[in-house]
Amino acid sequence: MSLLVVGSVAFDSVKTSGGTADEVLGGSATYCAYAASFFGPTRIVSPVGEDMSETHLEELREHNIDVTGVRVVPGGKTLRWSGRYSDSFLERTTEDIQLNVFADYDTTLPDEYLDSEYVFLANGAPEAQRAVLEQLPDRKLAFLDTMNHWIEGSRGALDEVLGLVDGLVVNDEEARLLTGETNLLTAARRLAGFGPEIVVIKKGEHGAILVADGKPFALHAWMTEDVRDPTGAGDCFGGALMGTIAGRHDRSLATIRAGIVYGTVLASFCIEGFSLDGLRRVTMDDVERRREELLGMIRWHE
Amino acid sequence: MSLLVVGSVAFDSVKTSGGTADEVLGGSATYCAYAASFFGPTRIVSPVGEDMSETHLEELREHNIDVTGVRVVPGGKTLRWSGRYSDSFLERTTEDIQLNVFADYDTTLPDEYLDSEYVFLANGAPEAQRAVLEQLPDRKLAFLDTMNHWIEGSRGALDEVLGLVDGLVVNDEEARLLTGETNLLTAARRLAGFGPEIVVIKKGEHGAILVADGKPFALHAWMTEDVRDPTGAGDCFGGALMGTIAGRHDRSLATIRAGIVYGTVLASFCIEGFSLDGLRRVTMDDVERRREELLGMIRWHE
Repeated sequence: MSLLVVGSVAFDSVKTSGGTADEVLGGSATYCAYAASFFGPTRIVSPVGEDMSETHLEELREHNIDVTGVRVVPGGKTLRWSGRYSDSFLERTTEDIQLNVFADYDTTLPDEYLDSEYVFLANGAPEAQRAVLEQLPDRKLAFLDTMNHWIEGSRGALDEVLGLVDGLVVNDEEARLLTGETNLLTAARRLAGFGPEIVVIKKGEHGAILVADGKPFALHAWMTEDVRDPTGAGDCFGGALMGTIAGRHDRSLATIRAGIVYGTVLASFCIEGFSLDGLRRVTMDDVERRREELLGMIRWHE
Repeated sequence: MSLLVVGSVAFDSVKTSGGTADEVLGGSATYCAYAASFFGPTRIVSPVGEDMSETHLEELREHNIDVTGVRVVPGGKTLRWSGRYSDSFLERTTEDIQLNVFADYDTTLPDEYLDSEYVFLANGAPEAQRAVLEQLPDRKLAFLDTMNHWIEGSRGALDEVLGLVDGLVVNDEEARLLTGETNLLTAARRLAGFGPEIVVIKKGEHGAILVADGKPFALHAWMTEDVRDPTGAGDCFGGALMGTIAGRHDRSLATIRAGIVYGTVLASFCIEGFSLDGLRRVTMDDVERRREELLGMIRWHE
């Protein structure tokens, strides 16, 4: 498989009712690629500063991730995000964000990435997302994630890149912001009208909905009492979804739906710890075991 | 089957983005019994005032509901509730409530109801719920629903009746209010500790979760863009759940889970109209058809 993930590699500082983490490895591309790499080799593109440690990059390499595209910007500092969650984990407040090298970076892909067939554009500037796509004219499938910052601040550029991708993966709040619709099925159908044939709306503890070929599907999330930090769960969801498709080299509806199940599973591990802690000791056997448990939880067919 | 529903028969005035209804037939027992009666004959207990029309009672009778227990209080007025929903249907505001005859009524059951085996205590005063249970010592199964009014105002009486029932059916907000827990799985487990072996938490558009024998299950709701008035959806859910159990005369986990699927289906019809409008033209064939569609929407097993 040749799966490329584009987004941020960052340092996060997070406070939740489950504890505190200070300047730990985070970022949309980090989580997305880590989850995707359970399903096969994964490439990552992101700018980092001189403060990014080799230990972090080595950990990604050891998890089947090609970090050739993680480029150190001379004299630069890595993106930093600080935030906290309410006790219920339902509300997130950004306390500080310093884009640093992520504010504007050279999106030229390494030559060895130019044969990437599956592309996940994790959260980042739509202009950068578009610049990456334009270097991959022969790609088979591209999915995009975004967030309120770009929806509110770069809507024109976002609409352009939405017209170029096959799939959109956003959360409920972002879907409502993008469409002005509160009903999520209406929102998903409107989002499909913006270009992507495949629309996935993530709803956190409530699961996710998929609209593909005009047909709606809904998957409830894994139910757990073991939540420490939701940061990165949505990125893990997207990464595992695209990883499943790339690993099977199949973009049929059946595979997309299988990918949404795996996305739910990887997200469920992610929230069990800060940074990559929830995922670090997870094996593919663990993933399959939890997938079976999840399917048992949501099986209602007599 | 001998299924008894206890609760309110009321007049509702409702404003939603889908329209307005003025003094239409409503009430927890009305919706609950109407949904239950798709599955077999259903008995109803509620006080009404002299203003209750025979046309309404006749409509219930024609839908397989025994209204012997709907007693007219001489000189009394029927319960009235007025409320409105936000455009998203996510928030409900009670504008006025006049309990009238529902404030305090004679809960003595008609003799012909004393062999009732399945009892659904729809929303109402916990003292009245308990008084009904005490007249049915040989019942097979009793479920209870309640709301913030009683949780906040009659907690002692509510806790007592919770210790007497087999199942509890509440919404997410009520589950959190009852337990002080925000995590719904934690809340469901704590609620089971209050007495009921079977705990169902309704989550509106997101579906419902069930904890039975300590095991969690989750069902996503039917997805629809066709919402006019959510009033009564939760009561229809509970009624169809108990109707399924009573109709099959089986309280196994498999039947409870089948009942939750039917509950979701009946609730989905309920929200398509004001009062009983969404249910009036629905046949059991329609119910089975939508059930198949719902199961197709949530089937993730390859």
